[in-house]
Amino acid sequence: MSQHIISVKVENKFGVLARVAGLFSARGYNIDSLAVSKTEDDDISIMTIVVKGDDRIIEQVKKQLHKLIDIIKVSDHSQQASIKRELALIKLNCTAAKRGEVLQLATLFGAEVADISLKTITFSVDGDSGKIDRFIELAAPYGIKESMRTGLVSILKEKD
Amino acid sequence: MSQHIISVKVENKFGVLARVAGLFSARGYNIDSLAVSKTEDDDISIMTIVVKGDDRIIEQVKKQLHKLIDIIKVSDHSQQASIKRELALIKLNCTAAKRGEVLQLATLFGAEVADISLKTITFSVDGDSGKIDRFIELAAPYGIKESMRTGLVSILKEKD
Repeated sequence: MSQHIISVKVENKFGVLARVAGLFSARGYNIDSLAVSKTEDDDISIMTIVVKGDDRIIEQVKKQLHKLIDIIKVSDHSQQASIKRELALIKLNCTAAKRGEVLQLATLFGAEVADISLKTITFSVDGDSGKIDRFIELAAPYGIKESMRTGLVSILKEKD
Repeated sequence: MSQHIISVKVENKFGVLARVAGLFSARGYNIDSLAVSKTEDDDISIMTIVVKGDDRIIEQVKKQLHKLIDIIKVSDHSQQASIKRELALIKLNCTAAKRGEVLQLATLFGAEVADISLKTITFSVDGDSGKIDRFIELAAPYGIKESMRTGLVSILKEKD
């Protein structure tokens, strides 16, 4: 069982997403995160799938992905040097008395204040998944009212 | 036709994603972006769906989402004050001679250097979708070698 980051370039047609998701769920795999977005070319979307699973079975799923109609390219970033990022929005319970402490923690993580109210403060923070996990762990004692994560995207590092 | 940002809280079971995607594709809707990620509670995931469509039909889709098994909550952020963010990784063609110019543009958008090579530079940039679109437009003349976007996440603003 290891984590795989699979990038799938697809034709932007309805049904593709449902078919890709179906391929994983048919094997009983839950997807850890999924990010789907358009590219500069309106006809093409890219899906980044993070999934934990048996290496052999993931290989099979990748082969099946290749065979699906409307799939342009499948690449597994797990074994390659890549830049990985995700973004989280985190709304914390925070009254004026706690703001100094909370803002200090945020500064250490490069988190930006996205919204503030009498009783809450909402941060936007980005980085690799480990950094975001850690920020959430350290912020949790203040009370997380709501949080949203985009899921990971990954781009291969350039070899000179 | 207007843009809808639909946040769907679901039980983290295999098959849910395929069913939700299927509901949109059955109507012939392409999803503009989709972000799926776990929450602090491992059993619950949140999906943020950005879709353009006829308001009346989107209403129907939302009603059908409510009826799906394993769906905990559906909310439409489109008509409410919310904080919207996404993240993009953008790899530009850029030799040493152009670095100054490219870095100046990046600074104006608060984009961070994520990787650098002899012939490329990769930025991580976050913000609302309009800001990222604009950065990509202004960076395009240098040559975009690759780009990845997470898709939008949204969190409602707090009312005091």
